[in-house]
Amino acid sequence: MTTNHQFKLAARPVGNVKRSDFTYTDEPVRDPADGELVVKILYVSLDPAMRGWMNESKASYMPPVAIGEVMRAIAVGRVVASKNPQFAVGDHVNGLLGVQEYAYSNGQGLAKVDPKLAPLPLYLGTLGMPGLTAYFGLLDVGQPKAGDTVVVSGAAGAVGSVVGQIAKIKGARVVGIAGGADKCRYLVEQLGFDAAIDYKSEDVAAALKTHCPNGVDVYFDNVGGDILDAVLMRLARGARIVICGAISQYNATAPVKGPTNYLQLLVNRAAMKGIMVADYYPRAMEAIVEMGGWIAAGKLKSREDIDEGLENFPETFAKLFSGENNGKLVLKVAAD
Amino acid sequence: MTTNHQFKLAARPVGNVKRSDFTYTDEPVRDPADGELVVKILYVSLDPAMRGWMNESKASYMPPVAIGEVMRAIAVGRVVASKNPQFAVGDHVNGLLGVQEYAYSNGQGLAKVDPKLAPLPLYLGTLGMPGLTAYFGLLDVGQPKAGDTVVVSGAAGAVGSVVGQIAKIKGARVVGIAGGADKCRYLVEQLGFDAAIDYKSEDVAAALKTHCPNGVDVYFDNVGGDILDAVLMRLARGARIVICGAISQYNATAPVKGPTNYLQLLVNRAAMKGIMVADYYPRAMEAIVEMGGWIAAGKLKSREDIDEGLENFPETFAKLFSGENNGKLVLKVAAD
Repeated sequence: MTTNHQFKLAARPVGNVKRSDFTYTDEPVRDPADGELVVKILYVSLDPAMRGWMNESKASYMPPVAIGEVMRAIAVGRVVASKNPQFAVGDHVNGLLGVQEYAYSNGQGLAKVDPKLAPLPLYLGTLGMPGLTAYFGLLDVGQPKAGDTVVVSGAAGAVGSVVGQIAKIKGARVVGIAGGADKCRYLVEQLGFDAAIDYKSEDVAAALKTHCPNGVDVYFDNVGGDILDAVLMRLARGARIVICGAISQYNATAPVKGPTNYLQLLVNRAAMKGIMVADYYPRAMEAIVEMGGWIAAGKLKSREDIDEGLENFPETFAKLFSGENNGKLVLKVAAD
Repeated sequence: MTTNHQFKLAARPVGNVKRSDFTYTDEPVRDPADGELVVKILYVSLDPAMRGWMNESKASYMPPVAIGEVMRAIAVGRVVASKNPQFAVGDHVNGLLGVQEYAYSNGQGLAKVDPKLAPLPLYLGTLGMPGLTAYFGLLDVGQPKAGDTVVVSGAAGAVGSVVGQIAKIKGARVVGIAGGADKCRYLVEQLGFDAAIDYKSEDVAAALKTHCPNGVDVYFDNVGGDILDAVLMRLARGARIVICGAISQYNATAPVKGPTNYLQLLVNRAAMKGIMVADYYPRAMEAIVEMGGWIAAGKLKSREDIDEGLENFPETFAKLFSGENNGKLVLKVAAD
């Protein structure tokens, strides 16, 4: 009999996530019911949004994960048993399968993916939720024009690295903000960013002044907090700010820090708009086809940071917030 | 010889404006130089934006008023001497003429107004800068549709009262936020708002829940601060927030309070955009013609709060921030 190990939410984390916020359980894997399939999970995606799902939030876009429930996560896996005519044993699928080794599904919300077209972790990164977030957030809301200055925070992350590269493809001047010299070098030397600012060692406001002499036309914000405030002071007339996330605030135990300098929106006739990638899922194929072409042409690169072993989930997840991850953070659960 | 009394900025105010922040001076009125005209000021407009002009701001849309300079203000007056072929003695004009009894101008930025079409104070309110702010901010950025719920703060003020009435004309459900029972009654009984919230005596968050059961589609913000945060928690999907001002913050001696709940933009795919009325001046006639029609049809009402005597400027100006004014605040300097 096969065992399914799972991470279940045991407590609402206060500040940084700790191992004791979860219980690590096991149960036997059962056969699928009629209409169901069983997925053996291969890679679990670790995304900043998961931190929000752990909170008892009053007004979020998804219900919180209940105490005692398997922690919600996107994952890719392989169908190992199926009583659902849409999915055959051996199919690879992508969806909200959870932090566990096996998942049951009625097929709703699952997408088939082809490991011959791209390595499976790419379906969790550039060709998955983070890539779609970058593509639609930048192009639909940010609307960079050739010659614009585009700034992105969390620039070495799964979303930010795609944002910056697409902005380059569209002819913009691109400045990334990331933590640490290694990440900054990666942005400029490997991904072709025009400049990178190391928020851990540089004065972000001064560096923005140096690297954005004509102001910031598009700002793609993954971090919120002080960096958002610094960029607000450098906006060009008519700037567009894409609010994608606020990773600096997700572990905050004090109230979220709102952007003190938001009245710069008024001075600069600028717009700040929030995006939700789920709104764009019906158009996902547009993005995947175009980004697939850029990947094939060598114009869109990605880097995965793959840790191994489901049992390491809490510590690996924490790397997102300390900034220790290099590229899209993935937990490898099993070999295909 | 005629005397010109003037209020000159003597100090950068800290918090509320005091009489000692100005010097009240007099000087003889001289003849116009070639190309110049002399305007006898009849009404001075008192607007919240003036408070910002008194600060040594690093990043504003206009230079600060210099210490020793006549305080900047919009005013209407009558030409009493002219060596400028564009303007004749007896013409009525509107422009940045300052807090004084007489102004010199080369004609740039002055607009002629006709006191036979509308009373002069109306050119400082509904048919002037505040009215244009309301018209273009609401229609261009807020884009209310019939059936939308539109909320406006500073609702009894010169901008807010026009915003709400135009939103009604466009078929929206309109909720105003204002200070005091009298103002709230005025909004509902005289201006036809669907509901009004008295922020001085009511829990704004609870009242928004009552009056906006389907959420807020458009929020026109004149006040910032806690009220902006309360509305952010009630946004409907795809909401538009027009940032017009932040009167609650203009006298703040602490840093401006940024909107703590700004991540609701993300959850609700909502946009927050700043506007500057000066951008719309080239299209001013569109607004004036349409609003003139609404005024003539009795659909757009206005109320002026007219204090008399230039010498009362500091105390009258302070009424804007205590909320004591009822309608567009104007200082009458002289009879026509």
